[in-house]
Amino acid sequence: MIKLSKEETIIAEEFLRIKEDSGSHSPSVLTLKKMLSGIDIKVDACFLSNPYATDLFLKYLESDLIENRLIRDVLEFYPSQNDIIASAIAKSIKVNKENIFVGNGAIEIIQVVMKNLVRDNVVIILPTFSSYYEFVNQNTKCLFYNLQKDNDFLLDIDDYISFVKSNKAKSIVLINPNNPNGNYIKYEEMIRLLEEFRYLDNIIVDESFIHFAYEDNQYSLKSVADFIERYSNLIVIKSMSKDFGIAGVRAGYAIMGEQTVRSLTKDGFLWNSNGIAEYFFSVYSNSGFLKEYEIVRKRYIIETHDFIKRMNHIKNIKVYPSMANFILIELLDGSTAADFVMKLLIKYGIYTRIGNDKIGLDGEFIRIASRKFEENLYIYECVKELMEEN
Amino acid sequence: MIKLSKEETIIAEEFLRIKEDSGSHSPSVLTLKKMLSGIDIKVDACFLSNPYATDLFLKYLESDLIENRLIRDVLEFYPSQNDIIASAIAKSIKVNKENIFVGNGAIEIIQVVMKNLVRDNVVIILPTFSSYYEFVNQNTKCLFYNLQKDNDFLLDIDDYISFVKSNKAKSIVLINPNNPNGNYIKYEEMIRLLEEFRYLDNIIVDESFIHFAYEDNQYSLKSVADFIERYSNLIVIKSMSKDFGIAGVRAGYAIMGEQTVRSLTKDGFLWNSNGIAEYFFSVYSNSGFLKEYEIVRKRYIIETHDFIKRMNHIKNIKVYPSMANFILIELLDGSTAADFVMKLLIKYGIYTRIGNDKIGLDGEFIRIASRKFEENLYIYECVKELMEEN
Repeated sequence: MIKLSKEETIIAEEFLRIKEDSGSHSPSVLTLKKMLSGIDIKVDACFLSNPYATDLFLKYLESDLIENRLIRDVLEFYPSQNDIIASAIAKSIKVNKENIFVGNGAIEIIQVVMKNLVRDNVVIILPTFSSYYEFVNQNTKCLFYNLQKDNDFLLDIDDYISFVKSNKAKSIVLINPNNPNGNYIKYEEMIRLLEEFRYLDNIIVDESFIHFAYEDNQYSLKSVADFIERYSNLIVIKSMSKDFGIAGVRAGYAIMGEQTVRSLTKDGFLWNSNGIAEYFFSVYSNSGFLKEYEIVRKRYIIETHDFIKRMNHIKNIKVYPSMANFILIELLDGSTAADFVMKLLIKYGIYTRIGNDKIGLDGEFIRIASRKFEENLYIYECVKELMEEN
Repeated sequence: MIKLSKEETIIAEEFLRIKEDSGSHSPSVLTLKKMLSGIDIKVDACFLSNPYATDLFLKYLESDLIENRLIRDVLEFYPSQNDIIASAIAKSIKVNKENIFVGNGAIEIIQVVMKNLVRDNVVIILPTFSSYYEFVNQNTKCLFYNLQKDNDFLLDIDDYISFVKSNKAKSIVLINPNNPNGNYIKYEEMIRLLEEFRYLDNIIVDESFIHFAYEDNQYSLKSVADFIERYSNLIVIKSMSKDFGIAGVRAGYAIMGEQTVRSLTKDGFLWNSNGIAEYFFSVYSNSGFLKEYEIVRKRYIIETHDFIKRMNHIKNIKVYPSMANFILIELLDGSTAADFVMKLLIKYGIYTRIGNDKIGLDGEFIRIASRKFEENLYIYECVKELMEEN
């Protein structure tokens, strides 16, 4: 069982104070570095992104904007308006530009969708990304559907459908793969859900982690965004932070009915993308970039699943099944998640996400992100040492 | 009188089509370059910013982020949350961090303030920046107070006070200096207005152009932001795009009552600043940067007023008094503003802002921004040639 030393306990208390200030989210590694002295963070396994995609984007940025100093134009002048950036995205994903709403990160879209479009009530699956229930309108009722630990937090589709129907829900939120456990709803099942729920006001599907999931040995992408013409109540939310590794750029978009996009951009969200985000979306619609991206996406998937496989062999922890770029683990030796997270941070410099503040997670849970190959190896070795040699 | 040739008329029609798509705002120079072929834009006098400040910011960015490649951290990781960035701003402007709401550009703040905080009715001075009336809640009534051309679009304070009172207004918007005419309300008069209107729900003061106004020969800054503790109904909106020349970064903030800031950040606006904006605000609280900035601010003010003085000597136009970084001019020779703008664009490569779509501007008006010294000289020479030799 993990025990903190006196010194470690003092640092842990300071950490908790900083975390308190970040509400229901973890403080970023930059915030932590500024505020928590004496700790050398080697691996940020709290941060859910593909670091190889960051490398690739930086390579493009370097040659397109930095070497020739065109970055000045991007930072000096106003970026284009929402619908112009939507046109660039449309080229890449083959959805009509009229169906695309560009956001200042997916978080802005979650805020807008939950506040402006969701009415009456909404079914939210637990555990979840907390902003989905935190950002609802005060008149909206959240109906929580709990994933069962006994069922490895997998979604029982039939049970879920009857829950939504018997509660007379008006909207639902599906994060696929789900955050924080990584549960993946297969494409065919998603289509069944879209069909079952075509009578709802809103089917909100957050595909922020979909680039890490696969169903065939080609690792093909399976997004429901293409169904926007068939299901006008569908809203697909897409963060660029995770798959492209560019959280600081603040880029995201949603696929929605044309009417909904028009109603949002009619009196707001004019210049909500910054110049670097607009540049990112121009790269995102560049076939050369996308070809290189597919390579780093697949490489990261392979390494992530190698990492998950290794982690599965560590004693005294349970690793829940994941198709995302992170795993949810549960401690089985009586250690607390708080002690685990702090020991890993202080002794090994690995920053992970405690699960205790997540509603619907009853037990000692930690979410660990997959990073670069050598970082994953280091995480594996440290967690193994911590859980097997204590 | 200005007449367009056949070729110029064709380009003018194409330009109008592009402008149509931009709603009540001008298309950006980048959008224009992409869509309007065959035109070489030499000076963007539509764009209201201090280009010397852009130079300065780029110098810092180069040495802080580009030379040592730290730009990766800024783009890869999540930026800090709203209240942490507010702390950095607080250091620079000496307002409590609890009174600062950080926005994704001032436009996000205008949207939030007009939609979420302004109720019942609001007095808006015309002509104005159109988002102030476009973004109001559908239940909010806009009470328009017209600046008079006969009075050089200057604000008659007594008349304005009696208008606000007799209309039983609940909120008011003051842009100081005003956009698009540059009218400046002096500091003492602003204090009088704050005192008169302390009973209102909201006094919204947009100080996006305040860095260009002055009352003494030291060009001292006169912001009402310091009064936030005395007047809890005061909301000061501040864009960084104009004075710091960084529209593409999307950085702005507002000074508001503590309660108002808390109510907005309680369930939204978590990560609404991007990494470059967070970096900008760290520079903004750096005394070395601010010292260098004061020099380029004053240089730009001096050059702007030299430009305005010259423009005043051109025949067939009237230049309205301005304390901002632009001038509103009226054509007096029977030429239309549309022909003036297109001729200036096509023949001289100077992009200016037509005033015809601005409510409250009845006549042939154009807004021209002050740019770098040599660009201002070029604008002066071209307008002189155009208006005096036709």
